[in-house]
Amino acid sequence: MLIVQKFGGTSVGDLERIQNVANRVSESKKQGNDVVVVVSAMSGETNKLVSYAEHYSKNPNRAEMDMLLSSGERVTASLLSITLNEMGFPAVSMSGERAGIVTDTAHTKARIEEINPKNIEDSISEGKIVVIAGFQGISVDGYVTTLGRGGSDLSAVAVAGAIKADLCEIYTDVSGIYTTDPRIEPKARKLEKISYDEMLELASLGAKVLQNRSVEMAKKLNVNLVTRTSFSNEEGTLITKEENIMEKPLVSGIALDKNQARVSLMGVADRPGIASDIFTRLADSDVNIDMIIQNKSHDGTTNIDFTVPVNDLSDAKKVVDSFVENGDIKADSYNEDICKVSIVGVGMKSHTGVAAKAFTTMATQNININMISTSEIKVSMVINEKFAELAVKSLHDTYELEK
Amino acid sequence: MLIVQKFGGTSVGDLERIQNVANRVSESKKQGNDVVVVVSAMSGETNKLVSYAEHYSKNPNRAEMDMLLSSGERVTASLLSITLNEMGFPAVSMSGERAGIVTDTAHTKARIEEINPKNIEDSISEGKIVVIAGFQGISVDGYVTTLGRGGSDLSAVAVAGAIKADLCEIYTDVSGIYTTDPRIEPKARKLEKISYDEMLELASLGAKVLQNRSVEMAKKLNVNLVTRTSFSNEEGTLITKEENIMEKPLVSGIALDKNQARVSLMGVADRPGIASDIFTRLADSDVNIDMIIQNKSHDGTTNIDFTVPVNDLSDAKKVVDSFVENGDIKADSYNEDICKVSIVGVGMKSHTGVAAKAFTTMATQNININMISTSEIKVSMVINEKFAELAVKSLHDTYELEK
Repeated sequence: MLIVQKFGGTSVGDLERIQNVANRVSESKKQGNDVVVVVSAMSGETNKLVSYAEHYSKNPNRAEMDMLLSSGERVTASLLSITLNEMGFPAVSMSGERAGIVTDTAHTKARIEEINPKNIEDSISEGKIVVIAGFQGISVDGYVTTLGRGGSDLSAVAVAGAIKADLCEIYTDVSGIYTTDPRIEPKARKLEKISYDEMLELASLGAKVLQNRSVEMAKKLNVNLVTRTSFSNEEGTLITKEENIMEKPLVSGIALDKNQARVSLMGVADRPGIASDIFTRLADSDVNIDMIIQNKSHDGTTNIDFTVPVNDLSDAKKVVDSFVENGDIKADSYNEDICKVSIVGVGMKSHTGVAAKAFTTMATQNININMISTSEIKVSMVINEKFAELAVKSLHDTYELEK
Repeated sequence: MLIVQKFGGTSVGDLERIQNVANRVSESKKQGNDVVVVVSAMSGETNKLVSYAEHYSKNPNRAEMDMLLSSGERVTASLLSITLNEMGFPAVSMSGERAGIVTDTAHTKARIEEINPKNIEDSISEGKIVVIAGFQGISVDGYVTTLGRGGSDLSAVAVAGAIKADLCEIYTDVSGIYTTDPRIEPKARKLEKISYDEMLELASLGAKVLQNRSVEMAKKLNVNLVTRTSFSNEEGTLITKEENIMEKPLVSGIALDKNQARVSLMGVADRPGIASDIFTRLADSDVNIDMIIQNKSHDGTTNIDFTVPVNDLSDAKKVVDSFVENGDIKADSYNEDICKVSIVGVGMKSHTGVAAKAFTTMATQNININMISTSEIKVSMVINEKFAELAVKSLHDTYELEK
């Protein structure tokens, strides 16, 4: 098999851990696989470099930040290659540039435009383990770029797609994707397989093992992605296309997102375009809106409720305030004591009654549902935050996810 | 003027010092110059990275060491560029590769093969300060290389030659080239100008401000080199071609090298080729021979004396021992209590009596001269090490170098 293995910051956090990574990589090689490794900077290194830059500037030149930060991954890549060579496994490290990772020019958050994998493939055909500095590329105009948060995962997935790897393993400090957060429900079970779309819903809903950008790219490039831990030999979870999953469960997992706040606008003026005005202004302020509920009031005005990430709440308030000042909104209120519980599963597409079962469960537990939104493979409910754990555990039981 | 400024490890030793460098560079720019900066790694960084590598291997893969170590200079270059940009001086950092520094494939001690200065020149014409990561290049087959000891000086001189800079300033922690070591002779005077050839003789003789490789390259590329300190505004010393120095002093400086040992071979067999055998074997063992004296003994055998750097002495002994064992040499002895005092000056070429004056000075001080060697611009004498300082001071007086 041709395998891409990606190791994050904690997996290469110190010299001993880099040695452990070398042991694991060499095991794969010994089993007859061709291996390409993608590494992050040693944990702490990137923060150190950022603090250096911030000594000089609150808003450092972005192209120069990329030049600065990209050095961290190069250090890890060369150290891993040094120890692999010492162990008798010919290896060669490559910068993002040498690995052929070409990006646009959006420094500090560049997008991969193409991969030219010739150097990687040449080294593989020479029998070498290729160790790539993750998180970085080279812009079309020749400057070092970085890919933003989760960038090393992206490097790994993109390279796996370009060289048509059989597998792209993402090593982190968690052992895979669970039916729900095991800290809430100890009976949570690790999933063997999950589809890209389910993973996308679970990720955006709080299971922060993988960035959505990486899952989206894996889906686009049809890369078989495995998340697993670098701290044991435990098998991980395969994220793959739906067709590869024989037995499709009704529900794959329950996600919980406590990082939500509810904004309530009362007495919104009843004139055309007012809702559009409000949400356009919120979008311009980079406020992410999740669910929206609108209903007519008795006095001819409208009430609008919506949810935003807690971090966006103060920006949202500023926008709302301006509408309150000019009288377009009579009153506003905010509630951070809410959470969103979501049920995700591709099986929902072909089965009815999945949502009804969730509402019944909530009713049985006397949990009031404030807002509801659904998609083909997801049902989300906003409830009082104090019921969060109870809701997750009850739903986990209802859909028998421990089995 | 178009100026290349190179700052070594101590000049960029911490964040404050990098700020000082930025201030100095921006001063030059404000005065209307175009400025290209070459920087080393922050002092200590390279040693840290080496210790990381040695955690895994006593003899780490050299190509990977280059990938590893080259990151240090990239960090300094981007930090300097960040602070220059913040100060309002548009700047761009470049790796050795982007600066067009192409080398052979001798990793960890690569030789520069050519400079393709297009990227540098393009950025200069955009009004930018170019900050180049020193010490590194890209091999003809596309891998990162480093240039070995003094590599950043070489980067600076090579770039200065390629872009036809008016001046290449090498900033260190010493303020220039002195007539002799000021710790020995407080009356030592800083030289305003010195020729390449004199500098080469002074460098190899112990004035370790500049590596000979850099001076040789400056001579070859006709680069006006200035050594000066980054810790004050004091003027430095210009190293230039002889024609640029109007008033040629008889003697420019006195160098002292205590790092010498004398090897004496007694009763060397009187057969053709024996001396050749001995010195070939010494060369094969990488022993650097400096002076050699040979004279016939009364019994038909030969005595050979030569000097070597103290560091090469144990290797030299091994070679000599093998000749003693097979009877080609009757006896050997070693003396580390010697030193070499040298008088250097281009004026010697056209004046006689300079050497005689030196010998007279030694005689006046009752210092016995063991060995003598001369070149067009140099007279070297080996004497007992205990007379080192007395010899230097007396010669400094004799040639009136304090004036």
